[in-house]
Amino acid sequence: MNSYSSRLVETTVNELARLPGIGRKTALRLTLHLLRQDVTEVEALGNAIIHMRQDIRYCNLCHTISDGDLCEVCANAKRDHSIICVVEDVRNMMAVENTGQYNGVYHVLGGIISPMEGVGPNDLNIQSLLQRVATGEVKEVIMALSTTVEGDTTNFYLYRKLKDYGLLVSSIARGIAIGDELEYTDEITLGRSILNRLPYEGMMGR
Amino acid sequence: MNSYSSRLVETTVNELARLPGIGRKTALRLTLHLLRQDVTEVEALGNAIIHMRQDIRYCNLCHTISDGDLCEVCANAKRDHSIICVVEDVRNMMAVENTGQYNGVYHVLGGIISPMEGVGPNDLNIQSLLQRVATGEVKEVIMALSTTVEGDTTNFYLYRKLKDYGLLVSSIARGIAIGDELEYTDEITLGRSILNRLPYEGMMGR
Repeated sequence: MNSYSSRLVETTVNELARLPGIGRKTALRLTLHLLRQDVTEVEALGNAIIHMRQDIRYCNLCHTISDGDLCEVCANAKRDHSIICVVEDVRNMMAVENTGQYNGVYHVLGGIISPMEGVGPNDLNIQSLLQRVATGEVKEVIMALSTTVEGDTTNFYLYRKLKDYGLLVSSIARGIAIGDELEYTDEITLGRSILNRLPYEGMMGR
Repeated sequence: MNSYSSRLVETTVNELARLPGIGRKTALRLTLHLLRQDVTEVEALGNAIIHMRQDIRYCNLCHTISDGDLCEVCANAKRDHSIICVVEDVRNMMAVENTGQYNGVYHVLGGIISPMEGVGPNDLNIQSLLQRVATGEVKEVIMALSTTVEGDTTNFYLYRKLKDYGLLVSSIARGIAIGDELEYTDEITLGRSILNRLPYEGMMGR
């Protein structure tokens, strides 16, 4: 027999095992779990995946995933549209959004400049960012990219493109994470946090 | 905004997060991965899950998952139909099958007797096992259940039901796993392996 005793099961295991972080053993465990669920529940899962991929749209302004032409943030008049936070992908946008500390809008680059992986500026949503700031209605662009070589490269590239538009270009603060012990912090982070030190009163207000 | 900026994404994350071992963070990672795949690939995954659940059948004889009335093992005339290996579930059947050491047929109980979880003998495929041995064509029933209290309880229950049919009831060997170091083996396993010791020549033949 084939090792799954059913072609249907084998197909499902193969499909699930293509997902990142899911090996064949986990795929089999998930498959057998699904077989024990009600048909309607399994159909709900399958259809959710299919309909999402078929119907997903991206915000015309910030490129985040959206159910319409504009995402809920860009369509929200209560958000501050004069501040744009630049993020690498949707997940990072969600991370910033979940802090509850930010009331501006976003711009999703859709990646990060990485010569190693063949990703150049033209592969990213940079032209549309420049179009947004060219309207003159944007006062500040906050770069919220990872603190990696690629992140720094992208920051530098964007800064050069943005600096002539007469707006503030800032970057999220790098430093000791809240709750971290100083002695276990790496030297580069610690060094940066000394160079970028803030007046004590200023810290407390945040 | 809702934290996923799209109802479609939110629904998919919710559905995926219902799978065992998949939390909301992993579900989101999988969802965003799916958004980057081709529509046809995502449809293949979704449809594989749905069709499997809708069309799956179970072997009329041994109750394993099957694409037809009989599974490939039960339908195979080259297998020894006079030996039945009793397993808890499909996964255990696959484990035995993958050893390549067994040429008999199977019987999938669909669980194990567990008073704690409210699973009694009537919830398992025991009556159909007795019908199979009642034909008189079965010479041996091998019990291949887990070495847990529930497994031993089920073994004992089945043994009492089967012993009057004039066939050999055996159990897979328990002992030191191949490659295990003796000093790290628990005392009960080590004790059993001494009690159930085999002549050296006999061991070598296996």
